[in-house]
Amino acid sequence: VSEFRQNPATKEWVIVAPERAKRPDQFARAGERKPKPAFDKDCPFCRGNEAKTPPEVYRIDRDGDWGVRVVPNKFAALHPTQEPERVRENLYLKVQGFGVAEVVIETPEHHQTLATMAVPAVRDVLMAYLQRYHELAKDDRLDLITIFRNHGERAGTSLEHPHSQIIATPIVPINLRHQIERAQRYSDDHGLCVYCTILLQEQSLEARIVVESRHFIAFEPHASRSPFETWIMPHRHASVFGQITPHEIDDLALVLRMVLAKLYYGIKDPDYNYVTHSAPVDEEGVEYFHNFTEAHNPGGL
Amino acid sequence: VSEFRQNPATKEWVIVAPERAKRPDQFARAGERKPKPAFDKDCPFCRGNEAKTPPEVYRIDRDGDWGVRVVPNKFAALHPTQEPERVRENLYLKVQGFGVAEVVIETPEHHQTLATMAVPAVRDVLMAYLQRYHELAKDDRLDLITIFRNHGERAGTSLEHPHSQIIATPIVPINLRHQIERAQRYSDDHGLCVYCTILLQEQSLEARIVVESRHFIAFEPHASRSPFETWIMPHRHASVFGQITPHEIDDLALVLRMVLAKLYYGIKDPDYNYVTHSAPVDEEGVEYFHNFTEAHNPGGL
Repeated sequence: VSEFRQNPATKEWVIVAPERAKRPDQFARAGERKPKPAFDKDCPFCRGNEAKTPPEVYRIDRDGDWGVRVVPNKFAALHPTQEPERVRENLYLKVQGFGVAEVVIETPEHHQTLATMAVPAVRDVLMAYLQRYHELAKDDRLDLITIFRNHGERAGTSLEHPHSQIIATPIVPINLRHQIERAQRYSDDHGLCVYCTILLQEQSLEARIVVESRHFIAFEPHASRSPFETWIMPHRHASVFGQITPHEIDDLALVLRMVLAKLYYGIKDPDYNYVTHSAPVDEEGVEYFHNFTEAHNPGGL
Repeated sequence: VSEFRQNPATKEWVIVAPERAKRPDQFARAGERKPKPAFDKDCPFCRGNEAKTPPEVYRIDRDGDWGVRVVPNKFAALHPTQEPERVRENLYLKVQGFGVAEVVIETPEHHQTLATMAVPAVRDVLMAYLQRYHELAKDDRLDLITIFRNHGERAGTSLEHPHSQIIATPIVPINLRHQIERAQRYSDDHGLCVYCTILLQEQSLEARIVVESRHFIAFEPHASRSPFETWIMPHRHASVFGQITPHEIDDLALVLRMVLAKLYYGIKDPDYNYVTHSAPVDEEGVEYFHNFTEAHNPGGL
């Protein structure tokens, strides 16, 4: 029998219908994966084609070459040169498309993906996230920094070379604002972070834990919205992604890679998105929100 | 240059980037449309195959045969026999999957679609919506009735025979609750319905009106989330779909068919969803919400 389940943090209801459960081979995946070459001469993210991207804003070297490059997103709808001034016209409010959009090129090798990369290389990718978070957080005009990764066509990738994206905006999307407001109410009512409470509950239930390490836990939430929805959450209460320490990043690399390897090897490399849930930059340190990364199959949302 | 625009009703921000605008032939559409036969012997919704569906709960006759049939959805995750009791287990809340899911078979002819059907036949479809709304609204256990139509594979259709769907649930999705809360705040602040205010604003601007009739207006909102997003709104303030009168339905049939015909003939039959935005059944008559139907291309959401 099916049931509605409510996410206690957001109060969102989902329908869970075991009789309609997908088999592992039915998850959203755009056709068969073709073997990819280690180098594609037309790929702007491949080693040797660095001139095809805008100049890098950050890089991490590895083995005498670059390991991770961060470059501005050429095709972004946001532009760092516009002005974030609010303009009201009649009933309507607008702001120029000011913002920063960057691409994190995760490896020089075209055929890799995080699930197949060595843990130290995954760590470099996460260190690039962290460094860019801190750099972008210095700009007072930017209110929110979001990091995400689209894997596969159904997940919205346009380039197959492994990469993630960072977006920093002067506005906070209403869905995040609602998520935070609900967490605030819980904190007001209970004097506790609702996400800390969920974390403890899942540790005690054990059944939905995917992997747990010293600093992080990965679990499938009670009210998943999509197949293999997974939350990767720091044990330590921290409202924004940027509060994760370099030491904790070592541990996150292990956990993230293991979650992605389970998808890659265990259920045949389905398409996925992952995205950070992080409070706005100026809400760093608040008691009511807890940053985490959510991975899911795009089919279910 | 791109800009963020805020929907004044929901406070949702969207990015509008004219430099990234799609051409009409780039809207989400699952491949080329193949010509369809008027009758498909394997289609459970075709004339002559009535025994392949559960018994009808409602029908409207036309030309000595049925014109519209409403049948229970065989593949629903909701079941009318379960109990809508809330159960709390540890931190988590759940409810059995009680609810009603129905399919409105819009015509006996396989190859039609609302855009190509005669206005009186479209009117019959809308009258079936209205009649089922009133019938389902009598069940106190059902809090919300939503009517929607998915056209094309990218929009989520699994059967190509023209049909829409009705879902009645004992829960109110959090997104609708947030939408209503935002409208309540506007009503508290201004003593006006925010949707009535938008309607007047769009009438005075004129630029975004698609078509207007005696009782309805169809326009593209200022902060569209997806290509050709269109709101079809009654002039008369009414919080739920079921408050539309049979007389007004005549007029809605004209307007809806014209909007869909513009998509079908004007931009080559793209995939679309439409869905009613209607307050919960027991909020019929409230000042703060205004029912409307939203059509959009699935690609943009």
